[in-house]
Amino acid sequence: MVDRHDVAEISPRNIRLLLAYDGTDFRGFAESDGVATVMGELRVAVERVVRRPVELTGAGRTDAGVHAWGQVVSGLLPGDTDLGRLAHSVNRMCGPALSVRDIDWAESNFSARFSATARTYHYDVWNDQAPHPLLARTTWHVPGALDIDSMNEGAEHLLGEHDYSSFCRRPKPGPGQPERSLVRRLKTARWGPVSNGEPDQAPLIRFQITATSFCHQMVRSIVGTLVEVGQGRRAAESVAETLAARDRSSAGTVAPPTGLVLWNVDFSGSRWDSGRDV
Amino acid sequence: MVDRHDVAEISPRNIRLLLAYDGTDFRGFAESDGVATVMGELRVAVERVVRRPVELTGAGRTDAGVHAWGQVVSGLLPGDTDLGRLAHSVNRMCGPALSVRDIDWAESNFSARFSATARTYHYDVWNDQAPHPLLARTTWHVPGALDIDSMNEGAEHLLGEHDYSSFCRRPKPGPGQPERSLVRRLKTARWGPVSNGEPDQAPLIRFQITATSFCHQMVRSIVGTLVEVGQGRRAAESVAETLAARDRSSAGTVAPPTGLVLWNVDFSGSRWDSGRDV
Repeated sequence: MVDRHDVAEISPRNIRLLLAYDGTDFRGFAESDGVATVMGELRVAVERVVRRPVELTGAGRTDAGVHAWGQVVSGLLPGDTDLGRLAHSVNRMCGPALSVRDIDWAESNFSARFSATARTYHYDVWNDQAPHPLLARTTWHVPGALDIDSMNEGAEHLLGEHDYSSFCRRPKPGPGQPERSLVRRLKTARWGPVSNGEPDQAPLIRFQITATSFCHQMVRSIVGTLVEVGQGRRAAESVAETLAARDRSSAGTVAPPTGLVLWNVDFSGSRWDSGRDV
Repeated sequence: MVDRHDVAEISPRNIRLLLAYDGTDFRGFAESDGVATVMGELRVAVERVVRRPVELTGAGRTDAGVHAWGQVVSGLLPGDTDLGRLAHSVNRMCGPALSVRDIDWAESNFSARFSATARTYHYDVWNDQAPHPLLARTTWHVPGALDIDSMNEGAEHLLGEHDYSSFCRRPKPGPGQPERSLVRRLKTARWGPVSNGEPDQAPLIRFQITATSFCHQMVRSIVGTLVEVGQGRRAAESVAETLAARDRSSAGTVAPPTGLVLWNVDFSGSRWDSGRDV
């Protein structure tokens, strides 16, 4: 049974929602007519529970096929919404592809997009001759040997504050608008093996990258470039030149979306910039 | 280019093939007319490469939806087959759902089924309130808190040599044939957390179980029963009574296939028994 509210009486309150999803069957994050997107499915499910139109904002606009473990969403809901019941209902409607891991009331000025101070992504590579059937949806299968030390040496050239034009799909500015800046601050970028205690799992390697925000396809372009370094097709030092070129054709092939997961969004400290993510 | 062999000249040799698969989209392991099965897809792919009819035998007949990381398959192939090329071709045809991890020539008397001395399965449970989108295909989502110590206490009652009728779908004997024995020897059965270094992954728990062989649905029936122990719906001691009852109705609900993986098949030591697996 749903209580009937007098709209004038219930003032809306801001929420902060922690969201995980398997991006395989979504056509990306942002709502788009006629296709299944993360925000489209989430909004429809939330509206079915609160019986009001709602507007939601995400911390990072992940591309089609990209996953999330720690996506954050904000938006206004009727102030008397039972958040526990809302999460439960959304998970029943949208699970298991999409899962509300946590939900709580937030400060009125909280924005998942503009309050975020850093985003962390994981990119997993299955680096073995044979493909891994159970990791096919969440890794990029790269069969030949990779030199992880070289990949980390290459990654270090990307740290700091730079114009990442070489690694980004440049967004088209609207009519009369200036070009958007592709300057970002990269805090960490490191490859390492993932061990779950099983020696058989050793060929799984993970790239962890944290930045204030990312421009479009930036993580996948960096991963594609660094994998070419690991394969010996590019020198680790050449990554500095690629960055300096500010030219997309100097970077490696964009890695597939399967291996990419929006892992965590940080809201601590002060905001430095924001923008379209990945 | 395929060489043309004189069948009389090339004597067949036995192979040992290590196979992984995502069972989600297969209707089980054994060949069956008109549906996609693991052995059906594998045989067709191998025959396409060697251009001869082949007969293959697996170590464990996994049910529909059950996965494998370490399934083993044996069978006779033309003695001049390039095994590396065969594995590569099969993986191109059947990947990533099915993957030949390794392949080599074997002794002529090697049988994946009858030479196996032990099978190890993993069963993964995602034990958190919200579902995990990226583990939905490979875990059973059990939302409420589980008492792992009780589950392990219950599991200990199952160790040793017993008639596991309470945990098995009894196969129908053929006409005029005696009933098959459901006596098996259980070597290990233990629950524990899976850590991959990420604290967020803590709710992932794994059951590891090793036996000479398993009868039909045995692992899933044991998992279902032990999860009821973990939920406090059965006492740990009651598992001994369930075992002694030799009555399927005394066991818990059969756990879904999603969480189950045939992890490893052992061929060391001496064979003790064999039979239909899982």
